Amino acid sequence: MEDINLHFTGDFSAIGLANNLLAALIDNHIAHGNELDIDPRRIEWRRVVDMNDRALREIVVGLGGTANGYPREDRFEIVVASEVMAIFCLATSLDDLRARLGEIVVASTRDGRPVRARDLKAHGAMTVLLKDALKPNLVQTLENNPALIHGGPFGNIAHGCNSVIATRSALKLADYVVTEAGFGADLGAEKFLDIKCRSSGLMPDVAVLVATIRAIKYHGGVDPRELDHENMKALAKGPANLERHVENLRKVYRLPAVVAINRFAFDSADEIEAVRERLARLGVETITANHWAEGGRGAADLARAVVALCGTPGRPAFVYEDDDPLWQKIEKVAKTVYRASEVTADSKVRARIRKLQEDGYGRFPVCVAKTQYSFSTDPKLRGAPEGHVLNIREVRLAAGAGFVVMVCGDIMTMPGLPKVPSADGIDLVDGKVVGLF
Amino acid sequence: MEDINLHFTGDFSAIGLANNLLAALIDNHIAHGNELDIDPRRIEWRRVVDMNDRALREIVVGLGGTANGYPREDRFEIVVASEVMAIFCLATSLDDLRARLGEIVVASTRDGRPVRARDLKAHGAMTVLLKDALKPNLVQTLENNPALIHGGPFGNIAHGCNSVIATRSALKLADYVVTEAGFGADLGAEKFLDIKCRSSGLMPDVAVLVATIRAIKYHGGVDPRELDHENMKALAKGPANLERHVENLRKVYRLPAVVAINRFAFDSADEIEAVRERLARLGVETITANHWAEGGRGAADLARAVVALCGTPGRPAFVYEDDDPLWQKIEKVAKTVYRASEVTADSKVRARIRKLQEDGYGRFPVCVAKTQYSFSTDPKLRGAPEGHVLNIREVRLAAGAGFVVMVCGDIMTMPGLPKVPSADGIDLVDGKVVGLF
Amino acid sequence: MEDINLHFTGDFSAIGLANNLLAALIDNHIAHGNELDIDPRRIEWRRVVDMNDRALREIVVGLGGTANGYPREDRFEIVVASEVMAIFCLATSLDDLRARLGEIVVASTRDGRPVRARDLKAHGAMTVLLKDALKPNLVQTLENNPALIHGGPFGNIAHGCNSVIATRSALKLADYVVTEAGFGADLGAEKFLDIKCRSSGLMPDVAVLVATIRAIKYHGGVDPRELDHENMKALAKGPANLERHVENLRKVYRLPAVVAINRFAFDSADEIEAVRERLARLGVETITANHWAEGGRGAADLARAVVALCGTPGRPAFVYEDDDPLWQKIEKVAKTVYRASEVTADSKVRARIRKLQEDGYGRFPVCVAKTQYSFSTDPKLRGAPEGHVLNIREVRLAAGAGFVVMVCGDIMTMPGLPKVPSADGIDLVDGKVVGLF
Amino acid sequence: MEDINLHFTGDFSAIGLANNLLAALIDNHIAHGNELDIDPRRIEWRRVVDMNDRALREIVVGLGGTANGYPREDRFEIVVASEVMAIFCLATSLDDLRARLGEIVVASTRDGRPVRARDLKAHGAMTVLLKDALKPNLVQTLENNPALIHGGPFGNIAHGCNSVIATRSALKLADYVVTEAGFGADLGAEKFLDIKCRSSGLMPDVAVLVATIRAIKYHGGVDPRELDHENMKALAKGPANLERHVENLRKVYRLPAVVAINRFAFDSADEIEAVRERLARLGVETITANHWAEGGRGAADLARAVVALCGTPGRPAFVYEDDDPLWQKIEKVAKTVYRASEVTADSKVRARIRKLQEDGYGRFPVCVAKTQYSFSTDPKLRGAPEGHVLNIREVRLAAGAGFVVMVCGDIMTMPGLPKVPSADGIDLVDGKVVGLF
Repeated sequence: MEDINLHFTGDFSAIGLANNLLAALIDNHIAHGNELDIDPRRIEWRRVVDMNDRALREIVVGLGGTANGYPREDRFEIVVASEVMAIFCLATSLDDLRARLGEIVVASTRDGRPVRARDLKAHGAMTVLLKDALKPNLVQTLENNPALIHGGPFGNIAHGCNSVIATRSALKLADYVVTEAGFGADLGAEKFLDIKCRSSGLMPDVAVLVATIRAIKYHGGVDPRELDHENMKALAKGPANLERHVENLRKVYRLPAVVAINRFAFDSADEIEAVRERLARLGVETITANHWAEGGRGAADLARAVVALCGTPGRPAFVYEDDDPLWQKIEKVAKTVYRASEVTADSKVRARIRKLQEDGYGRFPVCVAKTQYSFSTDPKLRGAPEGHVLNIREVRLAAGAGFVVMVCGDIMTMPGLPKVPSADGIDLVDGKVVGLF
Repeated sequence: MEDINLHFTGDFSAIGLANNLLAALIDNHIAHGNELDIDPRRIEWRRVVDMNDRALREIVVGLGGTANGYPREDRFEIVVASEVMAIFCLATSLDDLRARLGEIVVASTRDGRPVRARDLKAHGAMTVLLKDALKPNLVQTLENNPALIHGGPFGNIAHGCNSVIATRSALKLADYVVTEAGFGADLGAEKFLDIKCRSSGLMPDVAVLVATIRAIKYHGGVDPRELDHENMKALAKGPANLERHVENLRKVYRLPAVVAINRFAFDSADEIEAVRERLARLGVETITANHWAEGGRGAADLARAVVALCGTPGRPAFVYEDDDPLWQKIEKVAKTVYRASEVTADSKVRARIRKLQEDGYGRFPVCVAKTQYSFSTDPKLRGAPEGHVLNIREVRLAAGAGFVVMVCGDIMTMPGLPKVPSADGIDLVDGKVVGLF
Repeated sequence: MEDINLHFTGDFSAIGLANNLLAALIDNHIAHGNELDIDPRRIEWRRVVDMNDRALREIVVGLGGTANGYPREDRFEIVVASEVMAIFCLATSLDDLRARLGEIVVASTRDGRPVRARDLKAHGAMTVLLKDALKPNLVQTLENNPALIHGGPFGNIAHGCNSVIATRSALKLADYVVTEAGFGADLGAEKFLDIKCRSSGLMPDVAVLVATIRAIKYHGGVDPRELDHENMKALAKGPANLERHVENLRKVYRLPAVVAINRFAFDSADEIEAVRERLARLGVETITANHWAEGGRGAADLARAVVALCGTPGRPAFVYEDDDPLWQKIEKVAKTVYRASEVTADSKVRARIRKLQEDGYGRFPVCVAKTQYSFSTDPKLRGAPEGHVLNIREVRLAAGAGFVVMVCGDIMTMPGLPKVPSADGIDLVDGKVVGLF
Repeated sequence: MEDINLHFTGDFSAIGLANNLLAALIDNHIAHGNELDIDPRRIEWRRVVDMNDRALREIVVGLGGTANGYPREDRFEIVVASEVMAIFCLATSLDDLRARLGEIVVASTRDGRPVRARDLKAHGAMTVLLKDALKPNLVQTLENNPALIHGGPFGNIAHGCNSVIATRSALKLADYVVTEAGFGADLGAEKFLDIKCRSSGLMPDVAVLVATIRAIKYHGGVDPRELDHENMKALAKGPANLERHVENLRKVYRLPAVVAINRFAFDSADEIEAVRERLARLGVETITANHWAEGGRGAADLARAVVALCGTPGRPAFVYEDDDPLWQKIEKVAKTVYRASEVTADSKVRARIRKLQEDGYGRFPVCVAKTQYSFSTDPKLRGAPEGHVLNIREVRLAAGAGFVVMVCGDIMTMPGLPKVPSADGIDLVDGKVVGLF
């Protein structure tokens, strides 16, 4: 566990280096005469670092005179926000990786043409840096079950799923493969299905919707500091959020679904029963999963329920089709999944979407960067809101990953450290790591 | 060879992360109220990246408003220039590593007091990040001889030797241990002896001075593009440089020495003989080493000569004593090793040296950052110049590594890429890396 | 005319210096220990220059090390956007000027308290710099009529009227005083009345609404390049804009009004007649003013109409009362004058307005920074739009001028030069200025 | 006196605007496509402001995205440091002014060609801005004597003399014209003669060397806080400085000279006598001038002495000839006037001087920027030092002014304010300015 949380197999470091090699090649190209006529003010590619470092969010680089290139505004993001990470997780082979890296659009020229990584001959060396990292990492659980841990694109700005290669490897090695799609199902499941599944051709047999009594009470309006106490009133209102997710999975994506209550010690039997009853009305089974306390045995009921649902006849669907224009794609996600009444964007953002459509990126899926705390873009809007407005603040092309990011609301791609950072308590005492968890 | 040149065992990545964690903690401390009263203009600690990226040499960070901290001028250096790398190579144990990391002086307060890594509680977490990297890396040569590759402090700004722990491990495992001290012997041997040996208590039995006929001709005044042709005239003048190095090793450091000519295919027999003769006059043996062409067998004569010298009676010496004040230390190096007539420094630099002496750092050895192309600070001054002036441009305290860096001349701690960078030709073709060498 | 357009009497230079003295005193205070604990990231006061210079819109100052102070993000604006200019135009005496300058809030401390110009003892010296400039400048027209030209606050960010002192002087010297309120009447008249008249206690007897046939056609939907041709169809639709202004003046402000058509050579008689007829339906007289071609004689009819309206009984009103909270003030302007359906603002802007209300600035009038091309914030929405939304993007306190600026839409406080700047053609030929007009 | 110290006739404002117009045109040209291919990193032209504002010494401009141009490093200087000021003072007519403004070299192109103000068509509009300022300003003393105050180039970076036009006007109006050359005679007289007189063809008849007993004691080694007490010992040593100046004027420039002691109330008769005696030995008369206490009457003796020296036969000389190469010019000034033993410069500075020589600027006089506190570049080296080294740190071309600035030592072209700035005490009380003097 410790190793996984420290350097693990060095994949993140390799991804960071591949990202930063491309960044260095861009500025180097400009400094040496700028044959491609890159506009230094229109470089979209950013440097990354595997550290929460707010001081690097907005910087000016290239200062200090002619030997240091041309000054320009730049930003650092964290490694998991790099498009290289997203590409890494969607690539199906080293060749596909190399081709996708070459497609990355890093900047535009002074007259508006895109500049790609392959124009800078960067993709070959980037692939070399990633060749070992692309092999999935096999670890085992405390009960010696095999698990693959591979890749981790930021759920905020990218699609948030592990690598296609790891999922494919797992499917060859086991009868049942469980994969995680982070954040709420409006973000995690939506991106898993509309991006990873669409891109890879893989589809799940069953969806497990993981919920906690705490979260249900939170969506019922409870103060976050009061979530550890029984609150039956909140359980009357809170399940609306869960029901919406269940409805999305079953009606929109047409997937068989089961709800797993990830049990906390202080969850009361009445609370769990209240949830079970509500979902039963929708014809969905609710299983209490107690693996935190009991290990694998605690999730056996859940496993059985999942196995039982496998083979349910039916054909899953996506929210939108490849042929839908970008604007229609985001509208379908917003209206169908989020239940927004409207999608808005200022004229610059609309123009950018129109330009991407014209430039041939219209077939790409959209990847929404949005808060995970609400179906809406307002983190404080709990439950199952309807009729809210989805405003697109910024659009980013991920031409190598193969999607268009729609940034809705304030999304941070470089976190900061808290007043007392974890590092404060981490230490090596008598050769043992303390304070890491 | 490929792996060693790519990510190897991830040591550099770990060192980079430890360095950047400390950097993030500094800015984070300031952003959260700055209890230590760090002067944001007097932060000496710099971020690093394992990439030649000139755009990061001089930057402004912390822009973008209150959420991003306080704007300030900053610099990135390459990983090997980090003091963490120097500490890593001088540390004798995990405990020593942790203690040295805590001693790093990262900034000063508004009223001039030093701020250390341990004041920010950074050293524990940094040690955790480095705990696996600190174990030496054992590899083998093409002929299956064991070799330890561990650490690589930038010869420009640090002491340029591999880790003490690796050397100690090797001494326990083998009868004879060969270690490399980079750059010319005025830099490499001087730092190896005056810093690494002094700090670790280890001392070599024999010094091997590696020379090439090319370099000797270069010091004889030949145009770099003409070094592959026989030039007996240049061999009359060029050996002066080599003789000076030999003299330094034998008279200053009192070490038995042998000269190894690292043979190139186009070296003529007459050229080699000319060098041999000159050094014979000093009573020093010259051995032609042909391992590039012949493998280990090609260096057997050299090995025999070294073994023969082992056990030569005598007691090696340092250029200066621990008790010498800093200014006297740099003067002794300059006058004894470089044969400078004088050491100069402007009033700010002199004041800084005086302050370090007063603050108790007077016992530290000095670590000279100087060109490797000349005994002087002028890279164009070849041969064995005398009477030149050593100007100290900048002084940096490496309180954790335990030395004071004296920057003399223009020294680059963040290189840039050339017009056609190596990355241009590096690629993965049919699963094989091409273009890396 | 030339002198007026060059340095004139140096008033702008004096205002710029007073503004920049205050700016220098702020950074100087911080550099010398920052006794007031000013947060360098929360300085609202900006430097100014009397030049359209886009490179100065966003800058970083204080670079270069400890001797140059603390780095921070800053902006330059043009002189006319300085709050000193607004204060200058609203001040009723040197003492009032000095007191208002002292009230300027330039920054906030780290714990959120306001820092005023008087805390820096800047207002005395600023007053000294302005003491001569505060005297109104008397010039004469080509027909030797007296005219006072004094002050010019940017209509974008400030209230856009000449000085109170000049208006008061004129009222003592003449029977009738004509004063200009810039931009469309939704901006110019609104600010003239709700800010300058409210603050000074002066009220006009009559409003003259100046229109052009060109502008009416533009609001009728005509392409700007086609405005010089007769277009009776556009004249059916365009007057709606003018009618709205007339209605605002008469119903909202309860002022007698006359419309003056500022005649262009290519205006057709039919076009003018169409406008006259439309306004006659509202009971408002339309006079064709031909002073551009005929001098004072061309405006004699207009003058007679104005004189006739003077003494019309009635009592003018404001859009809002001093006691209305800030949010209600902006809502009243938006709904009554602009006919917006709603005022919006993000949570930061709302919080700032609430804070200003709590801090005692609730009695200040609001000063809207908005496009002059439309009643709405969308410059392309011509005619007399209704039901649009007024979004407040930014709020600025002008505590010395005595108003709160509500920035709605993109407003530029530092213009840029065009590709071919006027300077290109300006020259001194045989001692005569050419190219200035 | 008050007016002169505030805005006076607005000349400085006009010079600042002309300077900043040129600056804005440079960045504007780059932003609009950069037809001249200006290298944004090689812009030498700086913005100015008439304010001591250290925060503007080193800045980054052009931030904020494509609408704001290209980011680059920039600096502000004070108005008197602008080359426009130097040009203004050397111009002989409006036509000459215009031509010189056009010659200003503002930047270089990417391939190293100079970019001039006239390439940007800036000189015409700059001349228009300066047309009234170029007329000399006539004021009167308290005793109603006429005085011309016109121009004020920074003695640090420029030649430090008033305008040629003012001097020529005075020569037409009066029998005797007195003009001031600022700082010590090694700077002031040298530049007055070698730059202004050489350029204008005017030559003085007599030199008046103004000294104070305080300054003589200071050069005799007295602590600055002890200068108000009689100190005969210091008067034995201090006059060496004065004697050196006298010798320079008489032997180098071959000018008749008289020494004026600008009398302070606490100067003792013995002290004055001691100076008089010393200079009498050199055959130079010393006159006590008491105009501070007595007005014009107090300087009558001095006036008589000057008149007596007028008409002394002889022909003044310069330190160097127009044909001397730049390096020889600075060497002659250094060795003849400053009595330095050597002129040094690093390779970049030497290359720049060589390039200027090759580019045809070899005929320009040199303008030394150096401390006024010593004949050397070390402000602490008092008296009449010999054998010191003059290091040229930076070279600046003033192609419009017609000289090459050699910056020796630390010279500030943007001063900062002290902890308690004068503004602190300046105020307007009952309509009267207080605290200005």
